Amino acid sequence: MTGVRGVAILGSTGSIGTTALRVLARQEDRFRVAALTAYGNAALLRAQADRFGPSFVGLVTPNGGADDAGWCTGPACLVEAATRDDADIVLNAVVGAAGLDATLAALRAGKRVALANKETLVVAGELAHQAACAGGGEIVPVDSEHSAILQCIAGRPGQEVRRIVLTASGGPFRTWPREKLERATLADALQHPTWSMGRKITVDSATLANKALEVIEAHFLFGLPYDRIEVVVHPQSVVHSFVEFVDGSVLAQMGVPSMELPVLYALTHPERVPDAGVPPFDPVELGPLTFERVRHDAFPALRLGVEAGRAGGAAPAVFNAANECAVALFLEGRIGLLDIPRAIESALAALGGAPAGSRDALLAADAGARRHVTDRFAC
Amino acid sequence: MTGVRGVAILGSTGSIGTTALRVLARQEDRFRVAALTAYGNAALLRAQADRFGPSFVGLVTPNGGADDAGWCTGPACLVEAATRDDADIVLNAVVGAAGLDATLAALRAGKRVALANKETLVVAGELAHQAACAGGGEIVPVDSEHSAILQCIAGRPGQEVRRIVLTASGGPFRTWPREKLERATLADALQHPTWSMGRKITVDSATLANKALEVIEAHFLFGLPYDRIEVVVHPQSVVHSFVEFVDGSVLAQMGVPSMELPVLYALTHPERVPDAGVPPFDPVELGPLTFERVRHDAFPALRLGVEAGRAGGAAPAVFNAANECAVALFLEGRIGLLDIPRAIESALAALGGAPAGSRDALLAADAGARRHVTDRFAC
Repeated sequence: MTGVRGVAILGSTGSIGTTALRVLARQEDRFRVAALTAYGNAALLRAQADRFGPSFVGLVTPNGGADDAGWCTGPACLVEAATRDDADIVLNAVVGAAGLDATLAALRAGKRVALANKETLVVAGELAHQAACAGGGEIVPVDSEHSAILQCIAGRPGQEVRRIVLTASGGPFRTWPREKLERATLADALQHPTWSMGRKITVDSATLANKALEVIEAHFLFGLPYDRIEVVVHPQSVVHSFVEFVDGSVLAQMGVPSMELPVLYALTHPERVPDAGVPPFDPVELGPLTFERVRHDAFPALRLGVEAGRAGGAAPAVFNAANECAVALFLEGRIGLLDIPRAIESALAALGGAPAGSRDALLAADAGARRHVTDRFAC
Repeated sequence: MTGVRGVAILGSTGSIGTTALRVLARQEDRFRVAALTAYGNAALLRAQADRFGPSFVGLVTPNGGADDAGWCTGPACLVEAATRDDADIVLNAVVGAAGLDATLAALRAGKRVALANKETLVVAGELAHQAACAGGGEIVPVDSEHSAILQCIAGRPGQEVRRIVLTASGGPFRTWPREKLERATLADALQHPTWSMGRKITVDSATLANKALEVIEAHFLFGLPYDRIEVVVHPQSVVHSFVEFVDGSVLAQMGVPSMELPVLYALTHPERVPDAGVPPFDPVELGPLTFERVRHDAFPALRLGVEAGRAGGAAPAVFNAANECAVALFLEGRIGLLDIPRAIESALAALGGAPAGSRDALLAADAGARRHVTDRFAC
């Protein structure tokens, strides 16, 4: 790696964003913070800007206070941050489909997109590929599972990969009988056993909708058909995923659950740089490592998402939007946990075949799915 | 991979040799058996020669019968097989230090040496490096642990590797108290829990002398100092080894214990070719995976070997020869299991500082260690 590279962080006040800034604080001889954007936490954004001195600061929902003086405000700040000349890498850690335009713009501008916003690929995987081809950009995943797969593939050609197996912690409801899930509370859902993450992704982990998004993301990232992407439950979250090659060999990437490494690796890939963000690996401390089959009866969101992925077109966007909307309702206490997959299934049945030929068509499908879920499920 | 590559198999009637021929029978569009040699099993060698039609057949200890008509006989057949023009790859599966000259000759002749004969590197790691540099040859390991490490490193530069962790099944005596090991029988020692191998290596696995040889082998193969090579006990033998990189990431190579993959990979590295030798990977079936610290009090051979490696010079050759000799005595029922590390320790104390500047000096140290052990321990 030569020279100091500029990094734009979209979503800098969230879980991934703050992790990234911890990583970058240790790697200031290699990377410089070029831009920061946040959704609404102006106070934290101000502190980050003071510490890292980016040339651009953006706030999506300005409060009009003294905090945001001199900042770019409004939703357009994401695309602006993602396409700045002094940003070589765009870490997209925006939550949900709101991150789409910035990813596409960064790819068209030839940037590396370190992608924590999996919705980008779920909603518009084809468009992202086209943007990358057109502009010379590239996507490097920040999700721990996809980072693991990228590290295991390690530059070998796609035809040498037979199968990938994503691991899933199983979430807080791994062992709950299906009947009991009807009574799961928000507090139950937010008790993730191994990963400390934002609220939306924590709920997605509890329903396995997150793993469906990851399967679709893996399909687009690694160009694999869905029948060569599998999921296995691994409660300890030490094995971050497996890759099986055509000769039968299996590589796994492992470690203490921590997002510091996937964030750093997305910046340095394919190189590795010395870093102390991850505790030393001790398999004796971390084991025993156990693996279980997915209980599809209790976690229907996974199957629904993979089916949406196979269907293609607007179906993944509908899956994602219905899930986002239903999770928001669940977080507000307005629907139950199992209403989330019900809402997804209903939206897919109604809108899964919607037109999908453009960004606008996909965003229309997204909006339609949200309306559908709100109309039928919000009480 | 272009063209069909010729493979010379030294030790074709042993465990690795017969495994290799099963692999090559499936890969006849990529590899051709150019040469076969065996130590003494003329009947099996004849059957192999009839099946694979090599241009050269060698038998180290001829019986003068009809079997070996037309074959090259005597110890020199190893070097001859290893340097033939129609052999691009030499699979050295000879047991013990007898494989040394063939490895050195093949490396000097610019061949790839698929090395199952770890004694080569233990006895003469420096000489092997010099031979490879002089002749343009390369060593690719066949040991499952070293193959795993090679696959995990996957071409990344050495400065990105922080540490390697070799896994050890722990052998049949993993849970035996030290006192009970005094009474361990040959039959006990030959009951390896996870790997089906030859008798010598099976005893070495029971004493952990094998793991010491592997640590020294890893030191020479991957250019790592001994304080960055560790051993962890992993009874299931599913994780074949770990590599920790400087950024804290850990990769592991995994699978059902089988030598088919390491043999194939040594032929195809860095490429991978479709092969059905390894059963499909199912972590649910293979787990739980457990890891334990090495019980150095019960298995002193590991520490002795690593200390010999650190000492360098002739010490690793003395370690290896004393171990080979002591294992032979144990296999003959003439000494007990714990006499093996005692014999090693005694030989190292007497001869560990012997001259080591040449092949002949190393072989003299080897012979001295064998005499020492025979004189003091054979009853």
